[in-house]
Amino acid sequence: MTKILIVNPNRDTDMEAVILANARKCAPRDTEVDAKSVPSAPLFIENYVDEIVAGTGMLELIEKEEANYDAFIIACHSDVNMDALREKTSKPVIGIGQASLHVASMLGHSFSVIQTTRHSVPMKEDMIRKYGLWERCASVRSVPGDDPTVENMIKAAGEAVEEDGAEVIVLGCAGLAGQEGVIQDALGVPVVDGVACAVFLAAGLVRCGLTVSKRRKYNPQ
Amino acid sequence: MTKILIVNPNRDTDMEAVILANARKCAPRDTEVDAKSVPSAPLFIENYVDEIVAGTGMLELIEKEEANYDAFIIACHSDVNMDALREKTSKPVIGIGQASLHVASMLGHSFSVIQTTRHSVPMKEDMIRKYGLWERCASVRSVPGDDPTVENMIKAAGEAVEEDGAEVIVLGCAGLAGQEGVIQDALGVPVVDGVACAVFLAAGLVRCGLTVSKRRKYNPQ
Amino acid sequence: MTKILIVNPNRDTDMEAVILANARKCAPRDTEVDAKSVPSAPLFIENYVDEIVAGTGMLELIEKEEANYDAFIIACHSDVNMDALREKTSKPVIGIGQASLHVASMLGHSFSVIQTTRHSVPMKEDMIRKYGLWERCASVRSVPGDDPTVENMIKAAGEAVEEDGAEVIVLGCAGLAGQEGVIQDALGVPVVDGVACAVFLAAGLVRCGLTVSKRRKYNPQ
Amino acid sequence: MTKILIVNPNRDTDMEAVILANARKCAPRDTEVDAKSVPSAPLFIENYVDEIVAGTGMLELIEKEEANYDAFIIACHSDVNMDALREKTSKPVIGIGQASLHVASMLGHSFSVIQTTRHSVPMKEDMIRKYGLWERCASVRSVPGDDPTVENMIKAAGEAVEEDGAEVIVLGCAGLAGQEGVIQDALGVPVVDGVACAVFLAAGLVRCGLTVSKRRKYNPQ
Amino acid sequence: MTKILIVNPNRDTDMEAVILANARKCAPRDTEVDAKSVPSAPLFIENYVDEIVAGTGMLELIEKEEANYDAFIIACHSDVNMDALREKTSKPVIGIGQASLHVASMLGHSFSVIQTTRHSVPMKEDMIRKYGLWERCASVRSVPGDDPTVENMIKAAGEAVEEDGAEVIVLGCAGLAGQEGVIQDALGVPVVDGVACAVFLAAGLVRCGLTVSKRRKYNPQ
Amino acid sequence: MTKILIVNPNRDTDMEAVILANARKCAPRDTEVDAKSVPSAPLFIENYVDEIVAGTGMLELIEKEEANYDAFIIACHSDVNMDALREKTSKPVIGIGQASLHVASMLGHSFSVIQTTRHSVPMKEDMIRKYGLWERCASVRSVPGDDPTVENMIKAAGEAVEEDGAEVIVLGCAGLAGQEGVIQDALGVPVVDGVACAVFLAAGLVRCGLTVSKRRKYNPQ
Repeated sequence: MTKILIVNPNRDTDMEAVILANARKCAPRDTEVDAKSVPSAPLFIENYVDEIVAGTGMLELIEKEEANYDAFIIACHSDVNMDALREKTSKPVIGIGQASLHVASMLGHSFSVIQTTRHSVPMKEDMIRKYGLWERCASVRSVPGDDPTVENMIKAAGEAVEEDGAEVIVLGCAGLAGQEGVIQDALGVPVVDGVACAVFLAAGLVRCGLTVSKRRKYNPQ
Repeated sequence: MTKILIVNPNRDTDMEAVILANARKCAPRDTEVDAKSVPSAPLFIENYVDEIVAGTGMLELIEKEEANYDAFIIACHSDVNMDALREKTSKPVIGIGQASLHVASMLGHSFSVIQTTRHSVPMKEDMIRKYGLWERCASVRSVPGDDPTVENMIKAAGEAVEEDGAEVIVLGCAGLAGQEGVIQDALGVPVVDGVACAVFLAAGLVRCGLTVSKRRKYNPQ
Repeated sequence: MTKILIVNPNRDTDMEAVILANARKCAPRDTEVDAKSVPSAPLFIENYVDEIVAGTGMLELIEKEEANYDAFIIACHSDVNMDALREKTSKPVIGIGQASLHVASMLGHSFSVIQTTRHSVPMKEDMIRKYGLWERCASVRSVPGDDPTVENMIKAAGEAVEEDGAEVIVLGCAGLAGQEGVIQDALGVPVVDGVACAVFLAAGLVRCGLTVSKRRKYNPQ
Repeated sequence: MTKILIVNPNRDTDMEAVILANARKCAPRDTEVDAKSVPSAPLFIENYVDEIVAGTGMLELIEKEEANYDAFIIACHSDVNMDALREKTSKPVIGIGQASLHVASMLGHSFSVIQTTRHSVPMKEDMIRKYGLWERCASVRSVPGDDPTVENMIKAAGEAVEEDGAEVIVLGCAGLAGQEGVIQDALGVPVVDGVACAVFLAAGLVRCGLTVSKRRKYNPQ
Repeated sequence: MTKILIVNPNRDTDMEAVILANARKCAPRDTEVDAKSVPSAPLFIENYVDEIVAGTGMLELIEKEEANYDAFIIACHSDVNMDALREKTSKPVIGIGQASLHVASMLGHSFSVIQTTRHSVPMKEDMIRKYGLWERCASVRSVPGDDPTVENMIKAAGEAVEEDGAEVIVLGCAGLAGQEGVIQDALGVPVVDGVACAVFLAAGLVRCGLTVSKRRKYNPQ
Repeated sequence: MTKILIVNPNRDTDMEAVILANARKCAPRDTEVDAKSVPSAPLFIENYVDEIVAGTGMLELIEKEEANYDAFIIACHSDVNMDALREKTSKPVIGIGQASLHVASMLGHSFSVIQTTRHSVPMKEDMIRKYGLWERCASVRSVPGDDPTVENMIKAAGEAVEEDGAEVIVLGCAGLAGQEGVIQDALGVPVVDGVACAVFLAAGLVRCGLTVSKRRKYNPQ
């Protein structure tokens, strides 16, 4: 039995429940998935300062739980503090941003990411470039009025498909998990939720005996 | 139960057996994996002409088996005729080249691919660029004397790690499936076999209700 | 006398006649140009499956005619099966897509390609990236309603010039050969037909003793 | 009088003294430069975990000193937590990594960065890509044995010049400040220290009434 | 006292006065700034032919004044003949285009350049690519009717911010020096004038003992 | 009869004769090729200053001869002053650098350029980037000792093929015209001389009614 822990880098337990439900729905049968929030974290991660505030608690959580799980998932689409967690443990750590962007790249000519806030668009563009996936990115858009209702998600995603040529849509926030079905039905293109992707990727890595390289980048010794 | 068919685009049944064994070892418990060769294909796919020769049989195979499986895998690291198969069916088609390159990108700063022949290096470079993953590619190397023994694989992969800064190694041919463990032990970096990755990716996509976008690229109507 | 064969990768003889007429109009006086269709090919090449269907016949044609010509041109703007034909013969093989894109790059700051169908835009974008010419590409557009009348071609090309900053237009299909003059007159920018360009390029290569490199990529031995 | 505070993101006071001395040597006459360490930070910043550990103290320092200075400099060549500090204050925040890489880009065809440790090379490569300066980067190298003596710095920098074609050298660590003169004399190419560059850039920005844009990226409201 | 000469590559003395006034306003107190026009140059530099016409006089001016100044600035946003001047002298030569683009890159996620004429947009795009800063460029726009009034500048810059996502604006012509304040006030984003930036950069380089590399590119011996 | 003038941007008449002989050998039968040197130019173009010195004479030559020729070729592999000449005339102007790099890109997976001097390598790298062909460039190398004997050319080109993976070689100087055959025989890869390529390209453009776009970049009105 593969055991995966979802690290929720904020302390909103409603969001934790949404994420966990979606994760379990998509997990292989031989995989057990738990989720834990970080008590000292901000209620929601919304900016660069929040990332620092959440950091210490995330490190403590992974230290405490390292022996109890086979792999870890960071349930924030900005993959906050992923490099530090990968440094801390030698078990696989997968960010849901990374997972969703790579899966989306495999499903069509180009993808667009839909963010819940306008100010987070540049940060997400940086992240896509960091992962080397810029060429397959059609656009990063945010929802009207920074209000991620299903209607607004469909509106922004629809514009990405019609105007930017996106063939795949990526949900830009962990809290949107579960919306993928209705948007997919409305637009007729694949809609990718990172939590689901991270779960089957992490489980697959464990099954194949793969983990993150400790050669140089994540090995400070 | 998710059912996956591995399309072996050549007619070498020994290779088919090696591939299938590795695929089953890494498949989630709720997934059934079969493999079928293409009788009219070349014994081995080795170049661009072989890709055409294998094409018609691959299309026939997928047409015949479309109703019997939930997803298809192309078991050649060049992802031969993947675009055409994606056009033919609306079920997920994953190439083992694509699968391994995206998984490798998630496991470290940069990856190198080890090819079994010197002449196939430019083709693989084209493929990495096509998938938009060039920035994370440290190098594409081939084994000494075009002879992919385990020793030669370790030699070429070791040079990729030491000289090119690769933090992850990708096996550049389906027929190398099963060698990943011994190379990984020898070099201390993750070694990625595309067959294994394609299996857990395809199974994950099916479980999440995701498939390849039919918006424009794979929809000629 | 340099002898060039235009390989028409479909079996539409009207299209063959249009292509040949344009080719001869632009050929140097010391060059003889013929065109041959592929009887087993689709009526028109429209997608990835068609490319496979046309492949075997194209290989047979080039094998049969290799001794009779000094150079070969593939008369489909997607350069279908060009890699395989270059592998098959050591004489120059030029695709009209490749020829038109490189000539367009030399004639101005940036070019746009006008496709006859909306679904073929992603494929053409892939091709431009494959040739390493993405930086000079202003856009790939398709004609309104997938209906390539002269009026629609002028409309789409005009938008490329006005909105995307294109300074040169490339015709995205062999069957458009002959339209370049009227579009050029309407818009006041160079309009490039790949058939014409491929003819003078192929003739020039032969005259200079140049051919495609058989070093690695096209030399599977 | 322009007042600049150098934020030393570790708590090594010897290093603080070296940095401050070099900063003052290069400051314009109408500029006053101070330096403050972060008491809760690691002794040296060496990896991604250290970056989180230093974060809270850096935020506190900038909050406390915001009214007392016109601009802030982060004295770690990885520009640790620069995004968060830019979010926190509307006064200019310049990282010495950023400053040195841009100045180096203006001084020659290409630059190489010399790191003090082998494991930090991938992180620095990520940073150069993040700033969009990859095209002008000849290489990122580390010193032999992770031992940044002057001799080893000259050896690594010399190889960058001879083998990688670097025309400018960038010191990859704040603690190397002051070594630039001797390496420059030894190799005959400009050697750039980020502390010095950040000082004259920050002073210049203040004098011109320029600061970091708060349009979207650094404005979470 | 650092002495800087602004080379005005045209012979419009009104423009020279505007440039010099802005330069002195932003110069550090220990820096003396002069400006000299090129008598044999065109009245305004407007195209590639003008660049050649101005060239000889620029070379003569720098030869004559080399001993009298510590650094030189080219006061045309196209950095006309900068490579030749850098070859001619071993003292620092900074173009205002280069200076403004690098400073803008440090001040936000992406920048847009506003040109005074529509035909100069492609040339400026080439320049941004030459400096390796394309990734951080949101757009190059020109003012309505090629008429650079303050109103038109604000209109074009405002569209760059709203439609292209620019977080920083760069003035695309030396003659616009002095407009930065009013545009900045109108739009709420930093507006960068190259003359001011080049002055504090050149002064900083001299103070730090840095100059342009004479290793290969600017050393024809 | 198509009439082409080769503009030799220096005043070495021996070099002019070599260039003209090679050009005529490769010209189509219906094309007449002349060559004219620029009396006021440097003996050889060797650096950025020389480019300015040659400029005025080149502009005068093209003005004087515009009515007498159908197309113009710049016989310096740096394409000196090509933008200005394209601005001056509406007839096609082709640089031999541009011509050779595009033809080489069509003949194989990647090309290397062999320069006659070490200091000119960065300039040629800039040029390849300017034309947007960087992705297909394996390397730019210079000959040992800056001495372009046939032996040294074969040595540098051979290293490009063996070590950098070049499949095509480009001669980096007009004065090397005529060496292509012997290097090609020695190495077994295509060797491209820009003079020959520019002749058949220019003749082809004239025959097809194509010229350089005067839309924006080369149209200062």
